[in-house]
Amino acid sequence: MFEKITIIGCGLIGSSILRNINNNEISKTITVFDKSKDVVETIKKEGLCSNVSKDIQSAVKDSDLIILAIPLSSYKEVLLSAKDTFKKGAIITDTGSVKKEVNKIFENFNLTSIFWIASHPIAGTEESGPSAGFKDLFKNRWTIICDTKNSNKDKVEKLKKFWEFLGSKVKLMSIDDHDHILALTSHLPHAVAYNIVITAIETDEKFKNEIIKYSAGGLRDFTRIASSDPLMWKDIFIDNSENIVKILDKFSKNIDDFKKAITEKNGDKLLKIFASTKNVRKEIVKAGQDVETPDFGRKKN
Amino acid sequence: MFEKITIIGCGLIGSSILRNINNNEISKTITVFDKSKDVVETIKKEGLCSNVSKDIQSAVKDSDLIILAIPLSSYKEVLLSAKDTFKKGAIITDTGSVKKEVNKIFENFNLTSIFWIASHPIAGTEESGPSAGFKDLFKNRWTIICDTKNSNKDKVEKLKKFWEFLGSKVKLMSIDDHDHILALTSHLPHAVAYNIVITAIETDEKFKNEIIKYSAGGLRDFTRIASSDPLMWKDIFIDNSENIVKILDKFSKNIDDFKKAITEKNGDKLLKIFASTKNVRKEIVKAGQDVETPDFGRKKN
Repeated sequence: MFEKITIIGCGLIGSSILRNINNNEISKTITVFDKSKDVVETIKKEGLCSNVSKDIQSAVKDSDLIILAIPLSSYKEVLLSAKDTFKKGAIITDTGSVKKEVNKIFENFNLTSIFWIASHPIAGTEESGPSAGFKDLFKNRWTIICDTKNSNKDKVEKLKKFWEFLGSKVKLMSIDDHDHILALTSHLPHAVAYNIVITAIETDEKFKNEIIKYSAGGLRDFTRIASSDPLMWKDIFIDNSENIVKILDKFSKNIDDFKKAITEKNGDKLLKIFASTKNVRKEIVKAGQDVETPDFGRKKN
Repeated sequence: MFEKITIIGCGLIGSSILRNINNNEISKTITVFDKSKDVVETIKKEGLCSNVSKDIQSAVKDSDLIILAIPLSSYKEVLLSAKDTFKKGAIITDTGSVKKEVNKIFENFNLTSIFWIASHPIAGTEESGPSAGFKDLFKNRWTIICDTKNSNKDKVEKLKKFWEFLGSKVKLMSIDDHDHILALTSHLPHAVAYNIVITAIETDEKFKNEIIKYSAGGLRDFTRIASSDPLMWKDIFIDNSENIVKILDKFSKNIDDFKKAITEKNGDKLLKIFASTKNVRKEIVKAGQDVETPDFGRKKN
């Protein structure tokens, strides 16, 4: 399918892609690059790749498919280093959680000889780093490919086949729709989880121990979400701030209505809210999207 | 330990207590009352209790320990029916999640011949009803007993032994502290979960299906919390509205700060927030309060 695939960034996502395509017939050569010495050492120690490049230029040279599996804030730096070495006609994709801002970066570089098509595999675990990766991470999960009116249909089809090869289901979507939907289904819950936890710990010193002790009543599981990879989430919140702020405004309005309802002891209003949220759950179960235990989208290895 | 124990309300919590104390030497007689015909039928069919009372009066007659395992909004009705039949010196306790309002109800009844001492076993599952109960529900979980300056020390001690007999760890606490701590560790997370879900579904019709489809990124697990027993949570939110509104005010202020930070691309501020929430998680793990998979305080049977 490819002559050479390059994976830039070999953390959880990059190393999972690597584990999956290793020893398969999808590409003659597979090369990885990671700027962290620790990551490179792990890759070598675990025998995950025999072609670990020392610099980005040699990593991307002659490559048909380049996958950026790095923080959103590192794209520009990588493109600056690699742009003159890209093979003509290569597909460049990524695995990031927000698309609009990184797409602007690509547009500004105006790389006319390659095909930039954004991907977002909605998969992950609570862990990070190359040791946490596993080859079935993408199996039966959704990957969103953001095609635009300028996208080359053949290249989009080829990229789709790549993700399907990894076991993923693929959905094509515009960049705007992607960033809006992910803001609702993932970024809003994460933003709120961080704020629940900081609100809970702002209490008097007197209660600190009690709050930890009785955290099993709900708080504990929000601290699990709120301990996700800080660098990754900083980038996501900043890159998608426009959508997230709009949604948080609506959310705050709902919180105000909720406060009013409980202060006025308006049981009917509360029951109406609960009925509608119960309904969403039913639809999720119906859509086959539920799991035995909550995992916040981060399947355990 | 007791001559007769009465359980009023035989749902998840009541039936779990019943299953635990059945065939044990804690009480000569065990009687249950539930106003739902379906519940009574299940109790009989599963052979959980041979003394199912048809009315509250005969259920509580001669009882040393009466446990209310009913919604907070039903306490008054039960007390009105039962108050003239209580045995002198009996302990009356409950299993409710908020204490201040129901304590006022007891104070207003001014029942001088019995000992009202509130309990709150912090345990539950996602299910409700008598079939969902199981005898180890309270094992290694915390039960909070709210003693006041008027509480009889011997009776508090006896009630403490009762919960320990069920496998629970027991903590004594004032009513005010209980309602404040639970507002932070349980009621805030639940209130917010309902509001995340209603915010997510307020979107355009166009995105409804997509939101269900990609709910695995976080939203799905909030819908799980937001489908908890509506009647129970309506009562909790209304009874503890004063604490919850205060905390939601702080929470909204934090959300506003967060919006400002992401709009201003203030990465340092975000990383500071994430560091502090990561710290709380560490303390929870250190305190032995973490579990393999999130359960929102509702252990699976």
